[in-house]
Amino acid sequence: MTSHWMDDPISDEKTARVAGPAGALADSVRDLIDAVIRSEVDPDELESVRGEVEALTKRLRVQQIPGSFGQTHGFSSGAIRAWGNAAIGLRNAVAPPMVNETREDGTVVGRATLGAAYEGPPGMAHGGVVALLLDQVLGEAAHVAGRPGFTAYLTVNYRHLTALGRIRTEARAEPPERGAEHKTFVRGALFTIGEDGSETLCAEAEGLFVLPRHLREQMAKESAQEGL
Amino acid sequence: MTSHWMDDPISDEKTARVAGPAGALADSVRDLIDAVIRSEVDPDELESVRGEVEALTKRLRVQQIPGSFGQTHGFSSGAIRAWGNAAIGLRNAVAPPMVNETREDGTVVGRATLGAAYEGPPGMAHGGVVALLLDQVLGEAAHVAGRPGFTAYLTVNYRHLTALGRIRTEARAEPPERGAEHKTFVRGALFTIGEDGSETLCAEAEGLFVLPRHLREQMAKESAQEGL
Repeated sequence: MTSHWMDDPISDEKTARVAGPAGALADSVRDLIDAVIRSEVDPDELESVRGEVEALTKRLRVQQIPGSFGQTHGFSSGAIRAWGNAAIGLRNAVAPPMVNETREDGTVVGRATLGAAYEGPPGMAHGGVVALLLDQVLGEAAHVAGRPGFTAYLTVNYRHLTALGRIRTEARAEPPERGAEHKTFVRGALFTIGEDGSETLCAEAEGLFVLPRHLREQMAKESAQEGL
Repeated sequence: MTSHWMDDPISDEKTARVAGPAGALADSVRDLIDAVIRSEVDPDELESVRGEVEALTKRLRVQQIPGSFGQTHGFSSGAIRAWGNAAIGLRNAVAPPMVNETREDGTVVGRATLGAAYEGPPGMAHGGVVALLLDQVLGEAAHVAGRPGFTAYLTVNYRHLTALGRIRTEARAEPPERGAEHKTFVRGALFTIGEDGSETLCAEAEGLFVLPRHLREQMAKESAQEGL
């Protein structure tokens, strides 16, 4: 499967023009996903709606990229647009999406609302969805620390069932170890947020993120070019 | 958020009548999700499609359950219908869905095809999606072993980037430890499947699944009733 990669940037102009409508369309599909799970209309009506969905998909596929979305910026850039990302992707209705921000101390904080589509035990978020969101926020914390990488391992300790609804994640990278700067150890956590704003710790995570040699070399090259 | 729970079973007749159309509709929405990520049609067309999606959602919501889907069978039953489940849910377009079967030795084997909606690194499955599918298959292996539970911890060791495409998971519960029968230790793995059918080990996982006391007591009660 082909995909956008770091040598295929989208212009800022095109980005600005597409982001709004594409994000709004993905939001409408998130709502549709929820309705498909919860609907109790007749099987005939389900069939009829399916026909309409297929027709809409055809309209969108008139012009499309050949594979997955990928990323539309350099791996070393602070502004990767991972619009297809399964946890945060603006255009990806599988993603809640989690929306992240970085604090001055390097902590990445993510927020999402988990509806019926993220269920595991009845009324609760799937333990694997908790892991998905933590993997994402931990990975971003490694990135923010200037040491991006792929997940080498991830451990999630579940402290409390995660009720569906509003959640918050946070993660921060540990300082690098001398001689192992390509390995980044990150800790994080996920909380549910009650109606009164109170938080409940539901899971703690630690992960190791490692950057393969060929990407380390590419990053060094990009940094050198940016310095010209 | 309310949800179906074990005291709210759906009749076999209703299940048989709804499963086909509901599953087909969810499949069509999976295809729509992919198209929304990859489409390059004009912003005006994206807006127009969004309007149509919203109209379809309205039709489905004319009659719907109040919260999340939950499970439509007893927790101790072998035939839980978790149609809303984020990893395997028949009606949940967020789920690939992974389709699982149980071998005679108690190994649970899952299969799925991961498209653009499951992306993390360009062209690769999100590490957190790998964790989601492993959490599910490990949890089912605990269930199959007669010792279902919620995830207490999950560790995923990533051995290889997981290319988008066909994957297989497997998991099997370890024998119980005397005096700790409510804790089930499970090991599993995820493989990609190449076009020639060859498999590549991408991740190994271990997890601990624990059944809370109130559910243990409920299971014991259900077992006793089944024995009447």
